[in-house]
Amino acid sequence: MKNIGLVVAYRGDAFAGWQIQKNAETVEGDLKQAVEAVTGERVTIYGAGRTDAGVHARGQRANFKTASRIPPDRFAYALNAHLPEAVRVMQSFEVPVAFHSRYDAKGKCYTYRIYRGPIADPLTADFSWQVSYSLDVDKMRAAAADAVGTHDFKSFQAAGSSAKTSVRRVDRIDFAEDGPMLIIRYIGTGFLYNMVRILTGTLVAIGSGKFAPDAMAGIIAAKDRNAAGVTAPAKGLELTRVYYTK
Amino acid sequence: MKNIGLVVAYRGDAFAGWQIQKNAETVEGDLKQAVEAVTGERVTIYGAGRTDAGVHARGQRANFKTASRIPPDRFAYALNAHLPEAVRVMQSFEVPVAFHSRYDAKGKCYTYRIYRGPIADPLTADFSWQVSYSLDVDKMRAAAADAVGTHDFKSFQAAGSSAKTSVRRVDRIDFAEDGPMLIIRYIGTGFLYNMVRILTGTLVAIGSGKFAPDAMAGIIAAKDRNAAGVTAPAKGLELTRVYYTK
Repeated sequence: MKNIGLVVAYRGDAFAGWQIQKNAETVEGDLKQAVEAVTGERVTIYGAGRTDAGVHARGQRANFKTASRIPPDRFAYALNAHLPEAVRVMQSFEVPVAFHSRYDAKGKCYTYRIYRGPIADPLTADFSWQVSYSLDVDKMRAAAADAVGTHDFKSFQAAGSSAKTSVRRVDRIDFAEDGPMLIIRYIGTGFLYNMVRILTGTLVAIGSGKFAPDAMAGIIAAKDRNAAGVTAPAKGLELTRVYYTK
Repeated sequence: MKNIGLVVAYRGDAFAGWQIQKNAETVEGDLKQAVEAVTGERVTIYGAGRTDAGVHARGQRANFKTASRIPPDRFAYALNAHLPEAVRVMQSFEVPVAFHSRYDAKGKCYTYRIYRGPIADPLTADFSWQVSYSLDVDKMRAAAADAVGTHDFKSFQAAGSSAKTSVRRVDRIDFAEDGPMLIIRYIGTGFLYNMVRILTGTLVAIGSGKFAPDAMAGIIAAKDRNAAGVTAPAKGLELTRVYYTK
């Protein structure tokens, strides 16, 4: 048996999220069907993490085991022939037999895009959150620095989450601007369910003046979802990369 | 009567081009309907230029005359309420009564995006031309410099075009790279029908080695559409800006 690793990109708006479901199209479900069509085997797809409905991915990672003799680097092309255009296997390669996309992940990079302007730009509307009010990026940057580090991020966890601990380490939160687009890049060892979207909603509340510029430390300390800002829309979020080496 | 100027953005894949047609959805047709719904008047929409089916716009310009007392800057919001999401009036403002979006245009900026890679990225596939073979950007840049200036661009004009003269001035062709994306920006006083797409197809043929690195001058001199490269796909092209001052 070979273990095949995949880099997967997809448009979140075309799927009911990553995780396989009955009666809904999911990325994992489509990938499983494609691998089974190509190999003639029953397989399990191991993904690096679940993305919600609407969340895009540029560098999602997955793996599956197969006895197929298809060369590992050709799986990308073979699978794409069985997948809708909204998802593409960008690369395929052999990984060690013990490799697991989720358990071996050392960190992740997410990108959140905010379009600043009174009217949503139709060319970027599917990939960004349109915010009409003005944002003080310097205040957002300072607040983000307060979130970097190892903290209990319980305030930034969606209600009903089953994670054993809400302590996570955020290594960096970087800001970039491209005209009206504000791009926030989050890098960390792991993120709770909805954590990036709630962090973004909180940073926007600070940037707009709804929350005080120094509110971040208190929101973290509160360990209460109600202390943080709104959950930013899924369509602005992209899983950019999964790291396997430190 | 007031003359109202508009900045219009749209997804080219949602329309059968700019120009109004019977039995097909067009940007001009949708705008005319929206203005008529808002003002209760019959109007003519004057656009800065026709874009083909599939060509996107970020900064198309248009104007129309109206006796409506709606404040000029509010038209954007009023019109957007009557338009599909694939087209947005980004700004509206009063312009001099003699202003004409097309006849007063001094120049245009078009952006062409080429995604370099073996597999199309689903997040950018609707806005770029995917090219699998490798491109020598330095050769493309040198060839582009040979196209800058005032030339008879007959070789870069779609067959059946009715323009009186095929002499045009290209002021700049700039290249930028963003990872796998190669972004070519064309600025000029005017462009023939399909000219930017045929220039791009020709630059790609030079970058890939299909045409010699110094082929551009000879292709221009040939004044023959068959001498130039393919017409690059519409979906990679965006009308970025129309200039009214020099």
